[in-house]
Amino acid sequence: MRAGPSQEEIRRQNLGALLRFVHVRGSISRAELTSELGLNRSTIGALTADLAAVGLVSEEAPRETGRAGRPSLVVRPSSDLVYAYAASVEVDRIRVARVGLGGVILDQREAPRPRGEAIEAVRPVADFVAQMAEQVKPQARCIGAGIAVCGLVRREDGLVRLGPHLGWLDEPLGHALQDRLPDLLPQVAVGNVADLCALAEHTRGVAVGCDNIIYMYGDVGVGAGIIAGGRRVTGHGGYGGEVGHMVVNPHGRACGCGSRGCWETEIGEHALLHAAGRDTAQGAEAVLAVVEAAARGDATAQVAVRQVGDWLGFGVANLVNIFNPELVIFGGTLRDVYLAAAAQVRSRLNSIGLPATREHVRLRTPKLGGDAALLGAAELAFEQLLADPLG
Amino acid sequence: MRAGPSQEEIRRQNLGALLRFVHVRGSISRAELTSELGLNRSTIGALTADLAAVGLVSEEAPRETGRAGRPSLVVRPSSDLVYAYAASVEVDRIRVARVGLGGVILDQREAPRPRGEAIEAVRPVADFVAQMAEQVKPQARCIGAGIAVCGLVRREDGLVRLGPHLGWLDEPLGHALQDRLPDLLPQVAVGNVADLCALAEHTRGVAVGCDNIIYMYGDVGVGAGIIAGGRRVTGHGGYGGEVGHMVVNPHGRACGCGSRGCWETEIGEHALLHAAGRDTAQGAEAVLAVVEAAARGDATAQVAVRQVGDWLGFGVANLVNIFNPELVIFGGTLRDVYLAAAAQVRSRLNSIGLPATREHVRLRTPKLGGDAALLGAAELAFEQLLADPLG
Repeated sequence: MRAGPSQEEIRRQNLGALLRFVHVRGSISRAELTSELGLNRSTIGALTADLAAVGLVSEEAPRETGRAGRPSLVVRPSSDLVYAYAASVEVDRIRVARVGLGGVILDQREAPRPRGEAIEAVRPVADFVAQMAEQVKPQARCIGAGIAVCGLVRREDGLVRLGPHLGWLDEPLGHALQDRLPDLLPQVAVGNVADLCALAEHTRGVAVGCDNIIYMYGDVGVGAGIIAGGRRVTGHGGYGGEVGHMVVNPHGRACGCGSRGCWETEIGEHALLHAAGRDTAQGAEAVLAVVEAAARGDATAQVAVRQVGDWLGFGVANLVNIFNPELVIFGGTLRDVYLAAAAQVRSRLNSIGLPATREHVRLRTPKLGGDAALLGAAELAFEQLLADPLG
Repeated sequence: MRAGPSQEEIRRQNLGALLRFVHVRGSISRAELTSELGLNRSTIGALTADLAAVGLVSEEAPRETGRAGRPSLVVRPSSDLVYAYAASVEVDRIRVARVGLGGVILDQREAPRPRGEAIEAVRPVADFVAQMAEQVKPQARCIGAGIAVCGLVRREDGLVRLGPHLGWLDEPLGHALQDRLPDLLPQVAVGNVADLCALAEHTRGVAVGCDNIIYMYGDVGVGAGIIAGGRRVTGHGGYGGEVGHMVVNPHGRACGCGSRGCWETEIGEHALLHAAGRDTAQGAEAVLAVVEAAARGDATAQVAVRQVGDWLGFGVANLVNIFNPELVIFGGTLRDVYLAAAAQVRSRLNSIGLPATREHVRLRTPKLGGDAALLGAAELAFEQLLADPLG
């Protein structure tokens, strides 16, 4: 029941729409912007000039088109001058990137994650940011940082309420990073890794143009990033998408969360390695080793992959009945598991999914691969700028 | 990436916001509208005049306030002059109401549902509508009809793809009704009953002001109406919310959908009646009889209620982990089951729900009771008018 916007709000909305368009789609001519945004040429010209004046976009003559007439100027995002830092805090490693407006990864570093609390993980992140900052042009502008983390993140302040596989409880990850680099980082936003992978794939990956998607993310644990009707489903406090703790097997194994038979206990890293008789192994490489052994004909590994694939399809079918998505994306370690067990997944989907809810669903792997978490974290950091470019 | 609205769109948005406000909140003074909508007095005056000119609202002097100064005129929805028909097609009965703008039920009829296809169910609906139409003031205006149905409804055209407990497959319910009464009904919209109950409770019931809710609806089958971030989650084709076909018990009973161990097989009407040793009984009254027997101390009924309550909590906990809602509402026959087995539901929620996802969730019964389906169907019919009041 919001009333229509004021003139000032409309201008902000138009500036945001134009900047977001260029940010997501890359260089684009004024003529295309005019038709895509449904605004007239003079408005597009004025908006572009405003954005260019503060260095968010630049304009240039297009390459020779071979056509007659004066060509339309091309507007491009100032990726080298406006950027965010993006970090991904995972069980085994931390990654940091500098991402330019337009979603361009300009620099990237990686290190093992130091064990311990958030303050420990923040140290190498801050070091990488400080190192990268030295390479930046003096006139460039950092708009902040985004962090993807495998845990439950409180929306209002980015507190990591629970990071079960990090051993974290109530860790103020964002504040810890900002406290270390108050001069470099005007703001730090934190989000769940599966949510941010979904955001990235929706913005510039395999899910562009799809308004109802589920991004399944597997690491040690399992979570989902869900987009319904074009909007992220994050719930009341920000903790939605904990599909790994949907109980699928009432008589199943005990889960670290205190419950029993959670989906994670059937499709997580431990479940696959246990079924393959490799209980002492761990990590994404160990998961890949099982999948590869299965491909080579190792019978134990094949049984393990089929069993996990069966449970993967089981839970996905439940989610398809609940959400009626058009796209399910398998990311993280679940990417390889899905590729090796697509037949099991599809079979379960066909037997459990209702015809109407599953008939148009496509099962896919990510387009952005491992970069999704970083690009999603960068999107989180860019959100405020895109909502109010001159604010 | 939509650009800001044009002046014409803003006017439409403002008219819609004002009309929706009056529709949802009832009579309200111009002064309150001014502050609630954040528009100035002259704009509110002009918008109100436009809506009054086409008979959507009326203005009157307020009752004596006892305060000094000229009192602000009160704007009220023209409930007696602008109305929709609302129908609910359930397994055992059909209900039809005439609902005035503002959500006022002006007239209501009920009949057993004739067995057979949609065309059979439409006959008494059309008869009731025709009877009610005779009582309507000649200057009153019908804006259409909405129908709630216990089935999977295709969003684009209202086709009932599957109504498992109605015995329906691909039934054009809306078209069938409109074809019978083309002169009385300018449009007919169809929606899933759980979705529409959620919409009604969100608009004017227990969920007003709550943006993340799950409405559990139990009849013979079980479904959910889900609202996330203030918007209905209906999925790609409109079939979302089929939580009754989330498999919770891989070794459970065969379900009518062809799968096994669906939640519906553990908490649906048949599950309760079977557990209570009353396999030959059926219907909402039979469910209530078991709950009442349990309350009187009947041991078999008590075991049945506890067992179903346990599974009810099991599935609700899964949904809480997936959606992190602030409110779960138990409607239809699940209302009585929940009230009798709240301890089991809460216990399961505490053992399966993650602390962060469940900590702020409230479990409630509907405020609108059995009227929710009719009021939700009316909201569906009113949607177009509220989006563009003068269109």
